Amino acid sequence: MTAPLHEARSGTPDTQQGMRRRNLSRVMHTIAADGPMSRAAVASRIRLTRAAVSTLVDELIRAGLLEELGPERPGRVGRPGSALAVSRSGPAGVGAEVGVDHLAACVVDLRGEVRARAERHVSNRGRAPEPVVDDLAALVRQVSEEADREGLRPAGITVAVPGLVARDSRTVVRAPNLDWHDTDLGALLPAKPPVTVDNEANLGALAELWLGERAPGDFVHVSAEIGIGAAVVVDGRLLRGTRGFAGELGHVPVHPEGPPCACGGQGCLEQFAGEVAVLRAAGLDPGEGRVGLLAERAVSGDRRVRSALREAGTAMGIALTGTVNLLDPQTVVLGGALSRLAPWLLPSLEAELERRTAGPACEIAVSQLGSEGPLLGAAHSVVRAVLDDPAGVAHSA
Amino acid sequence: MTAPLHEARSGTPDTQQGMRRRNLSRVMHTIAADGPMSRAAVASRIRLTRAAVSTLVDELIRAGLLEELGPERPGRVGRPGSALAVSRSGPAGVGAEVGVDHLAACVVDLRGEVRARAERHVSNRGRAPEPVVDDLAALVRQVSEEADREGLRPAGITVAVPGLVARDSRTVVRAPNLDWHDTDLGALLPAKPPVTVDNEANLGALAELWLGERAPGDFVHVSAEIGIGAAVVVDGRLLRGTRGFAGELGHVPVHPEGPPCACGGQGCLEQFAGEVAVLRAAGLDPGEGRVGLLAERAVSGDRRVRSALREAGTAMGIALTGTVNLLDPQTVVLGGALSRLAPWLLPSLEAELERRTAGPACEIAVSQLGSEGPLLGAAHSVVRAVLDDPAGVAHSA
Repeated sequence: MTAPLHEARSGTPDTQQGMRRRNLSRVMHTIAADGPMSRAAVASRIRLTRAAVSTLVDELIRAGLLEELGPERPGRVGRPGSALAVSRSGPAGVGAEVGVDHLAACVVDLRGEVRARAERHVSNRGRAPEPVVDDLAALVRQVSEEADREGLRPAGITVAVPGLVARDSRTVVRAPNLDWHDTDLGALLPAKPPVTVDNEANLGALAELWLGERAPGDFVHVSAEIGIGAAVVVDGRLLRGTRGFAGELGHVPVHPEGPPCACGGQGCLEQFAGEVAVLRAAGLDPGEGRVGLLAERAVSGDRRVRSALREAGTAMGIALTGTVNLLDPQTVVLGGALSRLAPWLLPSLEAELERRTAGPACEIAVSQLGSEGPLLGAAHSVVRAVLDDPAGVAHSA
Repeated sequence: MTAPLHEARSGTPDTQQGMRRRNLSRVMHTIAADGPMSRAAVASRIRLTRAAVSTLVDELIRAGLLEELGPERPGRVGRPGSALAVSRSGPAGVGAEVGVDHLAACVVDLRGEVRARAERHVSNRGRAPEPVVDDLAALVRQVSEEADREGLRPAGITVAVPGLVARDSRTVVRAPNLDWHDTDLGALLPAKPPVTVDNEANLGALAELWLGERAPGDFVHVSAEIGIGAAVVVDGRLLRGTRGFAGELGHVPVHPEGPPCACGGQGCLEQFAGEVAVLRAAGLDPGEGRVGLLAERAVSGDRRVRSALREAGTAMGIALTGTVNLLDPQTVVLGGALSRLAPWLLPSLEAELERRTAGPACEIAVSQLGSEGPLLGAAHSVVRAVLDDPAGVAHSA
């Protein structure tokens, strides 16, 4: 819970006005995390006077961000307080996802509940950005209309893409499996509500941070759709890298004299544990199917598939040894499509990590969010932005 | 300049009292970075009223942290303002360093000037911690007495050690080249002034962040004494790792089937680019000399030495490719003893990085601080703590 405060703080100067904005955010985050609760409970939690909290709460109710649930049960000393909850209507977050094989969109309310969701299976490999974005916009309209009927109003849209996104931009610099280069998605989408574009591995990691069961503050989140991506979270903050390109675990050299990689390197992790490499090692046609097929065959006991996944786990263990020695995370989380393959990847991955890590090996966990992570992370990133700066939403409403 | 503010902020609640403490810090940092300057200039810089700044400045002068240089030159409109500067006397930072081959101590004033320095060449390899700390304490006393004669009073001591230090502790968990294990240096040093213990690679990176010529906010700092260490700085903050063990670049696997490493792994970078490996490849006796000898021989054109350094550069390039793909830093800085060997390491290191990095390769720079980095970083970390929370010093004085 410290990171959003940090982020909200960094943009606002240390004035009465800045302090008010930060305190509005602290009230929202407190009620979102632990509500419903009374004004007095909020005041004691964030160490402000009850009078100060009441002023802030009134402003948040007027903006439609909080609602009163009515008086708390009687029998307590003093005037009965009304329980406050984050609003089920009003501002909401829209998540949208461009996958290699699918498109999806959803709406999440300020309480974190998914209120609408739509998906379409379509092969986007090699398709031009314009028709893909048109299809995605249709899905977004569909879920937005559904949400609108329940009194929800999109405060923003975040689009997850399987590619590198330049930091603080909406430009997909490179998405090899879509064959997109320097594609400005901002120019292709409607201007309102505001659109953010982010890498799917980043959004999957943020979903794990915000929604995961353990929610550790320091972890490396490894995910895969076709390539292998990762995201590094330190002290509850996503590490984006100078240009926004951090997390390219798939291109860590594992066997430096190994096969050439599309990135220009040689012997990268993707050459040993990427989907194409694993399908090939398993004797399956890379065009034939994807992670689902591998999981089915592994469940059914296919030896060649299991052996291919074991080898992939070993390669991942080598790449992750370097990662763990460099970053000392609390946990490595296998997320995205990889979570389905975890039973066959983990034994060799853990053995390699255990054997090679300089310190005591870090914990390995499997995400419960699975392939849904990036889409949820996208919608929740809008919700978090509202909680981090409710004054911004209140004034633009 | 944002990181220290963040850090100062995180510990203080959003109250009037917390705001005052943060504003005291902002006044100190502003004058330290850009002073001498008038109260009016400070006020305009940090967007507070002149009256508010005057109150803060008066408190800082009383605490001996700021001093007035007398009236500014006349001829300006309005009452002449007195220029303010960070005090040359009063609180100061003491840095101390335990090296494998030496001990050192220095005192740095709040303006960042080194006011006393002492060093002793002694082989600490395999020496018990007690006599080493006794010798170090004698050096600290010597520089402290020297500083005392100039009106400087140590606000704290930071000790740099070539080993893993558990986060937020003074315990050296492992220092293989000293043969120390789970050594609590805090228990061996006087209680006052307060002692902090940190890894030398971390302190070298902080020195680069605070004193380096470019001072980029995102960089990986690679250093070496006997082992190879690194430190990762992101958005101006040192990434310490969950347990404080981040930065173990020396144990990133480079050739996973390579020679066994003392860490329990195999084919780690240290097996190809560590001092012992390089001396051996150069045909020199590892007991015979260290980095200085390699540099001398390389300067004189010794082919075997140059070839050994070239090979070491290649191995470093492979390990750094993984690092750059994972973290996307703006710059990789070669610091510490490595900076002397840079002319012979860099060509192969850069070639490997250029060839293998997925995105455009990041900048490689050589630190101007060289081997002095960790000691300066240690003393400056105390100075920064004073600038980050001047109220803490004022009240404990």
